[in-house]
Amino acid sequence: MKTYKIAVIPGDGIGKEVVPAAIEVLDYVAKLDGGFQFEWTYFPWGCDYYLEHGEMMPEDGIETLKQFDQVFLGAVGMPELVPDHISLWGLLIKIRRELKQSINVRPAKLLKGLQSPLRNPQNFDITVVRENSEGEYSDSGGRIHQGADEIAIQNAIFTRKGTERAMRYAFELAKNSRQHVTSATKSNGLTYSMPFWDEIFDEVKKDYPDIDTAVNHIDALAAFFVMKPHAFDVIVASNLFGDILTDLGGAIMGSIGIAPAANLNIEREFPSMFEPVHGSAPDIAGKGIANPIGQIWTGKMMLDFLGHQDTGTKVLNAIENTLATGVKTGDLGGTATLEEVKNAILNQL
Amino acid sequence: MKTYKIAVIPGDGIGKEVVPAAIEVLDYVAKLDGGFQFEWTYFPWGCDYYLEHGEMMPEDGIETLKQFDQVFLGAVGMPELVPDHISLWGLLIKIRRELKQSINVRPAKLLKGLQSPLRNPQNFDITVVRENSEGEYSDSGGRIHQGADEIAIQNAIFTRKGTERAMRYAFELAKNSRQHVTSATKSNGLTYSMPFWDEIFDEVKKDYPDIDTAVNHIDALAAFFVMKPHAFDVIVASNLFGDILTDLGGAIMGSIGIAPAANLNIEREFPSMFEPVHGSAPDIAGKGIANPIGQIWTGKMMLDFLGHQDTGTKVLNAIENTLATGVKTGDLGGTATLEEVKNAILNQL
Ligand SMILES: CC(C)[C@H](C(=O)O)[C@@H](O)C(=O)O
Ligand SMILES: CC(C)[C@H](C(=O)O)[C@@H](O)C(=O)O
Repeated sequence: MKTYKIAVIPGDGIGKEVVPAAIEVLDYVAKLDGGFQFEWTYFPWGCDYYLEHGEMMPEDGIETLKQFDQVFLGAVGMPELVPDHISLWGLLIKIRRELKQSINVRPAKLLKGLQSPLRNPQNFDITVVRENSEGEYSDSGGRIHQGADEIAIQNAIFTRKGTERAMRYAFELAKNSRQHVTSATKSNGLTYSMPFWDEIFDEVKKDYPDIDTAVNHIDALAAFFVMKPHAFDVIVASNLFGDILTDLGGAIMGSIGIAPAANLNIEREFPSMFEPVHGSAPDIAGKGIANPIGQIWTGKMMLDFLGHQDTGTKVLNAIENTLATGVKTGDLGGTATLEEVKNAILNQL
Repeated sequence: MKTYKIAVIPGDGIGKEVVPAAIEVLDYVAKLDGGFQFEWTYFPWGCDYYLEHGEMMPEDGIETLKQFDQVFLGAVGMPELVPDHISLWGLLIKIRRELKQSINVRPAKLLKGLQSPLRNPQNFDITVVRENSEGEYSDSGGRIHQGADEIAIQNAIFTRKGTERAMRYAFELAKNSRQHVTSATKSNGLTYSMPFWDEIFDEVKKDYPDIDTAVNHIDALAAFFVMKPHAFDVIVASNLFGDILTDLGGAIMGSIGIAPAANLNIEREFPSMFEPVHGSAPDIAGKGIANPIGQIWTGKMMLDFLGHQDTGTKVLNAIENTLATGVKTGDLGGTATLEEVKNAILNQL
């Protein structure tokens, strides 16, 4: 029997509640399958850890994670206690970068049983491939002068390697999907990064003559998520544009609380990290009312990446069937607790 | 009688159709008012001009515009013929910068008679104040290396002056609105520009103790435009974030074709420029089916800025009443032509 060693970082806020729920589901489907099992090792890293130790994770944290097959993470951030740029760059973004998880895959799909906030959505099924290691999220920049003359500069850094990798991954996904890739750009406003992005897209697409393509500016694309989300298959976007589009993707599905994500090291040299789109939601943490579906669906993405697509599909079906029976948390307009949603999903399985 | 000298730049595509329609409406309400009139001077600048002269406007174009009270612009861009970063930086963005139109005001409002693509929108009425002169739209950056190692860098440049100006303008607007300002940030991902932005927001808000504030990351804020647009009053955003939010604002209203905008030189040292959110829409240009409402509503913003708020309100009412009678162009699900919509608005007036 294959045993997957998974590093678990529940993190902050509702991360601590949704992660154990998702693990219960994953253990259950592993038992049903019979061919593999998980070995979970918990790490208490996050803002509590920071308040005690002055750092979000121990110095050898990254080395520790490298010994695992994958990382399963909840959410990071307690802005009231630790500034976001410290908590995120000390844990979430640090892991994404140092484990070279340079591709972030995030689906947005109209689920059975869910009411989209859109009036009349046609069936949509989008996969956003977000460049996850560079671009606008760079730790390069600085300030000059003080007082009234102060200036801050933030450098967005795009490498051909990183850009091409994200684009090729998007085209590969499109081959097994509906043969369409849309590039998110903003070359009419950003005169260095995005024309570069466009040039690379024009080159890469030549290698995929069977895949149709479109190019949209990010402002228009955001509007299209509201007006015609069914028009998209795979979308490739920079780090920041992918971030924005995938929260929007969560919104049009019905709640950010259900949106899943996978930070992939596609070379499989280091562990990948599976972490939902939603944050730590301090306002509802500890009440047992958080929506566990984002984390459970994220678990399905881990199953897929480990090669257990059939089991992954079962998990997504169980989620949809649960929603169709009306068992929903508050963010989806229901009254169910986290525990009730999780149990309903287990029952469906 | 007061005469306003207005420089008119219809620009490209549907700009050439919607601008004359809006001018007809503006002339009509001026006559109704009786206290002022417009003197329109047309400039044929844009992509056609570029194809003939190799530049989007003559070298002394900016000096020419300075002799007018305001600029009324349609849309710029013909991406099939002229790369966007040439057409936009040679005309639209050039004017915004050289005439120091550092504030871009863009409302998003649920109009009577329009069906929002949102299922059950509560009444929303948002004003986005977009920093319009710096930030992510900078012409600073470059490339290094060739081939596989190529790297592009784009510098986002935020000055305290520009940032503070946009924020103070937002707070001033909120005083006459619903006393609430939301700041769009992304300080968890962008570690120089956005923490700077946040710091300045924290300082500026101290001067407006009667105004409530909120701070949201741009990804969440984009999702909130879908989930709870009624929760916002004035939003202050950087150049790029404002760009994205206002296209989204157009989408939740029902069509980007109706969204208006004003590029303001709030110091009134130079002319301001009134230009709708939508682009030149080459695909429907020349067919007489473009929606003139964005341009007409933009004309209303010019009336407001010139001190004719009462007349401005009449124009917006006429737009709403026209929509309520079902006279709509194709983008709004109707079958009316541009001419029919314009005439219906004139009739309402
Ligand atoms: C055309 C483009 C450069 C422009 C912008 O991004 O500012 C447009 O999208 C707008 O919003 O006015
Ligand atoms: C928390 C934040 C840094 C993060 C990001 O912007 O990448 C989050 O929004 C996400 O999408 O995973």
